[in-house]
Amino acid sequence: MAANKPEIGEFELIDRYFSALAASEDGALGLQDDCAILGLPDTEDLVVTTDTLVAGVHFLPETPADAIAAKLLRVNLSDLASMGAGGRAYTLSLALNENATDAWLRAFASSLQRDQETYGIVLVGGDTVSTPGSETFTVTAFGSVPKGQGLRRGGARPGDQIYVSGTLGDAALGLLALQGKVSDVSRASREFLINRHQYPQPRLELGQNLLGVATSAVDVSDGLAADLAHICAVSRVGAEIKWDQVPLSNAAREVLDQQPELMSEVLGGGDDYELVFTVPTAEAGEIEGLSGKLGLELTKIGRISDDTEHKVLVCGSDGAPVQISDAGYRHF
Amino acid sequence: MAANKPEIGEFELIDRYFSALAASEDGALGLQDDCAILGLPDTEDLVVTTDTLVAGVHFLPETPADAIAAKLLRVNLSDLASMGAGGRAYTLSLALNENATDAWLRAFASSLQRDQETYGIVLVGGDTVSTPGSETFTVTAFGSVPKGQGLRRGGARPGDQIYVSGTLGDAALGLLALQGKVSDVSRASREFLINRHQYPQPRLELGQNLLGVATSAVDVSDGLAADLAHICAVSRVGAEIKWDQVPLSNAAREVLDQQPELMSEVLGGGDDYELVFTVPTAEAGEIEGLSGKLGLELTKIGRISDDTEHKVLVCGSDGAPVQISDAGYRHF
Repeated sequence: MAANKPEIGEFELIDRYFSALAASEDGALGLQDDCAILGLPDTEDLVVTTDTLVAGVHFLPETPADAIAAKLLRVNLSDLASMGAGGRAYTLSLALNENATDAWLRAFASSLQRDQETYGIVLVGGDTVSTPGSETFTVTAFGSVPKGQGLRRGGARPGDQIYVSGTLGDAALGLLALQGKVSDVSRASREFLINRHQYPQPRLELGQNLLGVATSAVDVSDGLAADLAHICAVSRVGAEIKWDQVPLSNAAREVLDQQPELMSEVLGGGDDYELVFTVPTAEAGEIEGLSGKLGLELTKIGRISDDTEHKVLVCGSDGAPVQISDAGYRHF
Repeated sequence: MAANKPEIGEFELIDRYFSALAASEDGALGLQDDCAILGLPDTEDLVVTTDTLVAGVHFLPETPADAIAAKLLRVNLSDLASMGAGGRAYTLSLALNENATDAWLRAFASSLQRDQETYGIVLVGGDTVSTPGSETFTVTAFGSVPKGQGLRRGGARPGDQIYVSGTLGDAALGLLALQGKVSDVSRASREFLINRHQYPQPRLELGQNLLGVATSAVDVSDGLAADLAHICAVSRVGAEIKWDQVPLSNAAREVLDQQPELMSEVLGGGDDYELVFTVPTAEAGEIEGLSGKLGLELTKIGRISDDTEHKVLVCGSDGAPVQISDAGYRHF
């Protein structure tokens, strides 16, 4: 009952653009069956996550196909990372409109192919439909963890140290740069920030190395304060973080020097896809070693408290609490 | 970067409408984590499928929430059925717009709850986002089959009998009735056909009983001829089906008596979600017994041939080939 007659059937579309992405996995059944088959060793738990991106809501309409595909896959991989899972496979649902030209589809599929190689995952199934509205993309990603070992949000304990990977705020500032809201920044910094917005780096290797070390973890998708609040709510603890210890990139510093009011974006902006995690104080040395091993900054930004209201308290350099204007972007 | 400020946050929305759907499954982690955890006995393969429905494309915009939820879940369960899998769990991605009122969300969730009980499945995760366009719904469903036993499309052999469950064409005629294109039919028949369109019956029990019996299976989603063509293509065989042996409901007969030209909808219309499957002639007795056991008509409609062009040939009562105007609805 499609309103528009198809220019190309679903099976031709799969053949032309997507079959190659499933070629290495027998269980994908060549994308020719109704289902895929996933085996799993009985020493592992399957970890499942799903995320949807809508044009104009989760990315600007003019975003290149390459960047949409990368973000779609990587935000899901970031969820796997936050549980300490390794990536294995994914399904892909595309609701496409007239913007999905041959060139667009080729760029989209090529981007997925590159990420499959980088992250060791494979397409196992999907659905392709037409939409009269905004393009809508859903990935369901599958990973695995040793049975019963997955990192969770509920294990943080008072006294645990809070760490974050990489730098925060780049993605939010990159979006503002694309929207013309960042003035007076070097071209290199601008490109760095936009790249951080469009091509998040899921911290899969870090997550797997945190198994048995971290007491809780979450990826920063809604904003540092909001995501840490999820850990606090589920763990029934509080958190205190120090504003001036939040790790910033040089590009972000360059922007904040000119527009210090944008610091709230760093704490509340989201889309960083770094990991925030908690570790007992005794494991601090382990984290320093891990930072060196992975070549990834891991910065201590605060500690878990026994606050019975399960709040996230942000303190300035003088130790006094700071008000954040927006406690994190709330989707929908 | 949502255009509209949310009236209700994603976490409140999950709490209010969807948490109850995940309550019975520990691995859903109360829908409070980024991922769900699925264990699986090592005697089973996990079977995965995903389907997306878009308002105005896959269902009429005025369709009640209850029927949308039912169809969304059941078209996925039908895919599991076609592989002989039992249902276990599902994830749910919702891209919602202003039509998603409190009453709408309650009706949608209640419908899912009823189907969870009927089909023995449970919600384990999802994503909820806003869309400026058409509502878009994606379910990824998980089932399991004994290791290596899943029904496939590629096993049909020349000489195999072709069977179909239930009756065909009801859903296509039900859609036409909703669109005012069916004249002169009794109210009871009209309601029967619309019900068949809105509330498909996934044949999970049949599928599981076909393990080790059927050589191939597919569910009728694109239309009998088109879906059987998938079996032919993957199995590298042909098929001959007899027009006058295709099982029809009394309601469909009532419509066809008045509008015989709609017979092409029965063969090409799709959305029946019955199973078409092939069995070696020696197993015919097995199928008759199964029909009695399940209380479900299983009708022999033709046979697999060795046609090297892998075509589906539809023959009239005189045995001569019949031309079908539309070889099945092609989504997208």
